[in-house]
Amino acid sequence: MNSFGQKLKFSTFGESHGTALGCILDGVPAGLKIDEEYIQSELDRRKPGKSEFETARKEADKVEILSGVFEGLSTGTPIAMVIYNTNQKSKDYSNIKDVFRPGHADFTYFHKYGIRDYRGGGRSSARETAARVAAGAIAKLMLNSLNISVHSGISAVGEVASESYDYESAKNSIIYSLDPHAESAQKEIILKAKNEHDSVGGVARVLIKGAPVGLGQPLYYKLDGVLADAMMGINAVKAVEIGDGVLSASALGSQNNDEIRSDGFESNHAGGILGGISNGEDIVMNVYFKPTPSIFKEQHTINTRNEELDFALKGRHDPCVAIRGTVVCESMAALVIADMLLLNMGSNMDGLQRYYK
Amino acid sequence: MNSFGQKLKFSTFGESHGTALGCILDGVPAGLKIDEEYIQSELDRRKPGKSEFETARKEADKVEILSGVFEGLSTGTPIAMVIYNTNQKSKDYSNIKDVFRPGHADFTYFHKYGIRDYRGGGRSSARETAARVAAGAIAKLMLNSLNISVHSGISAVGEVASESYDYESAKNSIIYSLDPHAESAQKEIILKAKNEHDSVGGVARVLIKGAPVGLGQPLYYKLDGVLADAMMGINAVKAVEIGDGVLSASALGSQNNDEIRSDGFESNHAGGILGGISNGEDIVMNVYFKPTPSIFKEQHTINTRNEELDFALKGRHDPCVAIRGTVVCESMAALVIADMLLLNMGSNMDGLQRYYK
Amino acid sequence: MNSFGQKLKFSTFGESHGTALGCILDGVPAGLKIDEEYIQSELDRRKPGKSEFETARKEADKVEILSGVFEGLSTGTPIAMVIYNTNQKSKDYSNIKDVFRPGHADFTYFHKYGIRDYRGGGRSSARETAARVAAGAIAKLMLNSLNISVHSGISAVGEVASESYDYESAKNSIIYSLDPHAESAQKEIILKAKNEHDSVGGVARVLIKGAPVGLGQPLYYKLDGVLADAMMGINAVKAVEIGDGVLSASALGSQNNDEIRSDGFESNHAGGILGGISNGEDIVMNVYFKPTPSIFKEQHTINTRNEELDFALKGRHDPCVAIRGTVVCESMAALVIADMLLLNMGSNMDGLQRYYK
Amino acid sequence: MNSFGQKLKFSTFGESHGTALGCILDGVPAGLKIDEEYIQSELDRRKPGKSEFETARKEADKVEILSGVFEGLSTGTPIAMVIYNTNQKSKDYSNIKDVFRPGHADFTYFHKYGIRDYRGGGRSSARETAARVAAGAIAKLMLNSLNISVHSGISAVGEVASESYDYESAKNSIIYSLDPHAESAQKEIILKAKNEHDSVGGVARVLIKGAPVGLGQPLYYKLDGVLADAMMGINAVKAVEIGDGVLSASALGSQNNDEIRSDGFESNHAGGILGGISNGEDIVMNVYFKPTPSIFKEQHTINTRNEELDFALKGRHDPCVAIRGTVVCESMAALVIADMLLLNMGSNMDGLQRYYK
Repeated sequence: MNSFGQKLKFSTFGESHGTALGCILDGVPAGLKIDEEYIQSELDRRKPGKSEFETARKEADKVEILSGVFEGLSTGTPIAMVIYNTNQKSKDYSNIKDVFRPGHADFTYFHKYGIRDYRGGGRSSARETAARVAAGAIAKLMLNSLNISVHSGISAVGEVASESYDYESAKNSIIYSLDPHAESAQKEIILKAKNEHDSVGGVARVLIKGAPVGLGQPLYYKLDGVLADAMMGINAVKAVEIGDGVLSASALGSQNNDEIRSDGFESNHAGGILGGISNGEDIVMNVYFKPTPSIFKEQHTINTRNEELDFALKGRHDPCVAIRGTVVCESMAALVIADMLLLNMGSNMDGLQRYYK
Repeated sequence: MNSFGQKLKFSTFGESHGTALGCILDGVPAGLKIDEEYIQSELDRRKPGKSEFETARKEADKVEILSGVFEGLSTGTPIAMVIYNTNQKSKDYSNIKDVFRPGHADFTYFHKYGIRDYRGGGRSSARETAARVAAGAIAKLMLNSLNISVHSGISAVGEVASESYDYESAKNSIIYSLDPHAESAQKEIILKAKNEHDSVGGVARVLIKGAPVGLGQPLYYKLDGVLADAMMGINAVKAVEIGDGVLSASALGSQNNDEIRSDGFESNHAGGILGGISNGEDIVMNVYFKPTPSIFKEQHTINTRNEELDFALKGRHDPCVAIRGTVVCESMAALVIADMLLLNMGSNMDGLQRYYK
Repeated sequence: MNSFGQKLKFSTFGESHGTALGCILDGVPAGLKIDEEYIQSELDRRKPGKSEFETARKEADKVEILSGVFEGLSTGTPIAMVIYNTNQKSKDYSNIKDVFRPGHADFTYFHKYGIRDYRGGGRSSARETAARVAAGAIAKLMLNSLNISVHSGISAVGEVASESYDYESAKNSIIYSLDPHAESAQKEIILKAKNEHDSVGGVARVLIKGAPVGLGQPLYYKLDGVLADAMMGINAVKAVEIGDGVLSASALGSQNNDEIRSDGFESNHAGGILGGISNGEDIVMNVYFKPTPSIFKEQHTINTRNEELDFALKGRHDPCVAIRGTVVCESMAALVIADMLLLNMGSNMDGLQRYYK
Repeated sequence: MNSFGQKLKFSTFGESHGTALGCILDGVPAGLKIDEEYIQSELDRRKPGKSEFETARKEADKVEILSGVFEGLSTGTPIAMVIYNTNQKSKDYSNIKDVFRPGHADFTYFHKYGIRDYRGGGRSSARETAARVAAGAIAKLMLNSLNISVHSGISAVGEVASESYDYESAKNSIIYSLDPHAESAQKEIILKAKNEHDSVGGVARVLIKGAPVGLGQPLYYKLDGVLADAMMGINAVKAVEIGDGVLSASALGSQNNDEIRSDGFESNHAGGILGGISNGEDIVMNVYFKPTPSIFKEQHTINTRNEELDFALKGRHDPCVAIRGTVVCESMAALVIADMLLLNMGSNMDGLQRYYK
């Protein structure tokens, strides 16, 4: 239950303040050039402590490959990657040892397992997503070799939405904003929340370009279903939409259908997916992140003895978890697409016979 | 890839206009009273042709149990159920044999598989969801025995949203509307779309009551992630939100966190799920359906030879697929919760030792 | 847990004396010609009542395809097949309702599930293997299109071993004997056991010809491991060996290694598998069946109230379950190889890039 | 495909001469006391270089736990364990860079993946089994808490079979021999083979005591089927038998059936498994290992350019891989039983309702 994917499968391990975290990525085809610098650069995009818009916890997030690569190439065997935790201030957490922080998984983990690694949320911490980014980087290397690319950026912070989607600009924005015109207002909202010991929600937008027609295994491993699982499973995500998403529910069929021409679809309300299968158009998603539950205002809560108390959190936290979350969305999307590419092989006898002739 | 669930797993088969459709439901604990009338009553809620708000295709949707039940009780072996198709007018579809209907899966199935059962969309037809409802009915029987219940209704049709959520009222509404005050306006929109040879989108809302704390297997079989997959995988769904969902992305942490008291949570912005695990509160979701792609207006499209044409569909279709979709959402939700109940057993040594002592 | 396979997956349902049994075969590539007569002919090879060497129960074992085939070709969607039970004499079993037959699964099913369909063993009956043969027939059609073939026969009945392996001769032998010289002695043993109200064990041998190098997904979906699971899971099987099997454990390395020449291996002690991956040679297995536990001699046993009794079974049973078991071995082997062919696609980047270019 | 188990699942990584090997063990119930010394002691039983009967390669096989354990207890999250390779003499292997060693996986890996980590066999090396032993040790801790124990020993080396099975004695034997009277003859055979630059096969016997009735998930995750897969998947294993195994195929039903009395079975030909489900008796298996393919005699082979050559291996190898293999069998058996214990929960409504009441 700590694994994701069918043919390209990754399994992660590790807690926020344990020895290390990491993953095993299984199913990478042999012969892929494994560019370690690229993997590290992807981790650097996600790593904390890069600016005032993020948590002050500094982690090098240095990734080491333990297996599966020989002379620079994947060998078809599992690629294990490990990231040692370095900047753990476990003492920060001694005051929450018996307290359930509102909006956190403390309460549910404690009741499910009867035991809880309270240091930084343990396994439920978003710190685990570093492992997803490491795995996602290798998925991207696979995709790149087939001219498929995955992009992302912030399309809203609080109530300030991006009105244009410039993925190149997002790459250079410290908050990965898709809209240079909205960026400063978005930054302002984050800092305001931070200064008020509060946090704010946001929306990540993901774009996949170049995916061929045919990805997705209906009816219960559909491309949109699996993407929804992948995105909803990221810490703090509360909604996912494909293409027009929520808006399509108030549209008419004549507005929402994408008409077809011999050179492709005339519009892309569908977000690149029909019947759970990619249609060759851009795949587009929006991923809605709630505000970081870790705030420094006093809140009502209880402890493990069911005693009520008023509690104000201390520590270091992201004021807007959506920012670094964009990189995680991108990684998960890349892993899903790479898995679907492998699964799609053998969908018809033509492909099978060509492969084995 | 036509199976869903881990410990309670169902696998479906069947096409819109094939001989039969059905499912195998595997993992039902032995000793559950299988109430066949109840299963049929659930299918009756979903079956087409009940009113002017639905497709005119009439199907008895009579379910037969082929295995797994002995003397009225489940035996722990797979329960196979079959529904024979009776009212197939395959001729209706001869004119779309080579045409890709806009908004449909025709295009993607054809390119993925190289062959397409064009009669009524074949496998991609929402007709398959009858099998989900049959399986879901048995899941509900399991849940009922543990005092867990699943409810649903329409919270919006087009732009007319329900302002209250009365699940009892929805049960008696022909369009499953959650808000008696909005119902007639919602009906009007549907009929207007229908009369204009068009269709309209809608939103289903799902409520799960009585689920214990602890359901969900983090980090990659989270309750919210799996629900998102289950809902997004339903035909025509384009967005899923848990709890406040989209709205939480524009909220502050201090607004969005659910504070805790000794007798429970003070609010339920989270929709009953924290860290991918149920927290004992009501589980709440909204599921956004696009308008039925099958409309009778002329649209641009192409055929399998990539020739452009203007095409107006004929046949019998739901003007608002969300209506009957609510029942499917409910069924899928029940299946997910039942699966999670089984998976959660053995989460800690206490439970394991109690079970085997 | 009633499913087998990863990419080509089948799920079976049905009990010995229920309404019907059958399966869903998922993952068949689209465009495969589905020869229904061939499928039926495979079922006919397994069906009971063909001779005095088999149970007297007569079943037509007529298979119907419910889905997944359109105009004679597979569509890539699940192929459901159903076989209705016709010759059920459930009354035969009323006397065993509360009795645990020695050597049978009665005892274990009752204790695991708390309820037992006692009619003919219910789910634990070898009757379920008809569904495997139906699925296996389609797998064979896939294999045939790639020039891979699966063969089987009886290599021993009781202590009479076949000394040569003539698979063509086995096809024409009423007991599927691989050795025309041993056949009459083997028949004699079966009839002797039968006449003495007893039963006798036997060994099936399976040969797979034409499998390409590279099948098998190490380290935990190895070709030999999965074949071992597939064979051991057949009713009454108690041992499985690959290639020289048991004998290799008493050999020296210099005897057991297969030396290699530019045109292939000089011997085949390995049975065509090295490191869990096919090496291009013939794949060879022996599958050991215990004697049918259903005998008509009086035996000590207990009933569900833990009362001791002496019990002599009545009814209709195979005196040597290995005979018809050979067909099941063959079917399971075909399903495993077909699954491995699909899984092997995408093992390296070359194959991936060729597929998607 | 590098994972094993359903509810208790482990995934391994690592090559013989890579940086490290290890595993993630997922699904361990929270609250299990993780005795690190015990885990290390299990690894010490398997580690190489302990005597003249084993390879001279010395590895500390020091295991480190990276996650999933907090204050000495499992937390319900994945337990990652890593073992760094220390005594790699990769240069030993430069001469086999382009050569396919007879009896090895070199040939099949090269053809499947198109690339091969030739150092010590890379992923196909039995060195990977250290990870299984680490995971198995934790499974044993789980089993011990339920009074289930797993034992093993050598029941034959070459043609010298053990005539008695003394598992306590095996624990103290340097070659894990089950029969103190056969031990010296068994040792002699090993040394003779070694001195002649050859190797010899052997048989491991596994005994599981205390397993409750009801383990095994028929029909396609049967206890015997999964054990067969688990054992056959161990390096060099070519045959697996449950209970009387091969012998039962030449027996009569009246000999082979285990009659039942109110206090249990009168015999145990079945080896503790009926219908794929444990029956409460001892579970007994024999696992047949071929002789180590690594021998120092000259053999015919080819290289990657398909050129023939005569080749004599150099390096350090076990003369009888079955010896250390016994520990691996034991570990895999423990993992299977622990998985089955978890899967069996929820087999019937009684258990479900007791759990959730």
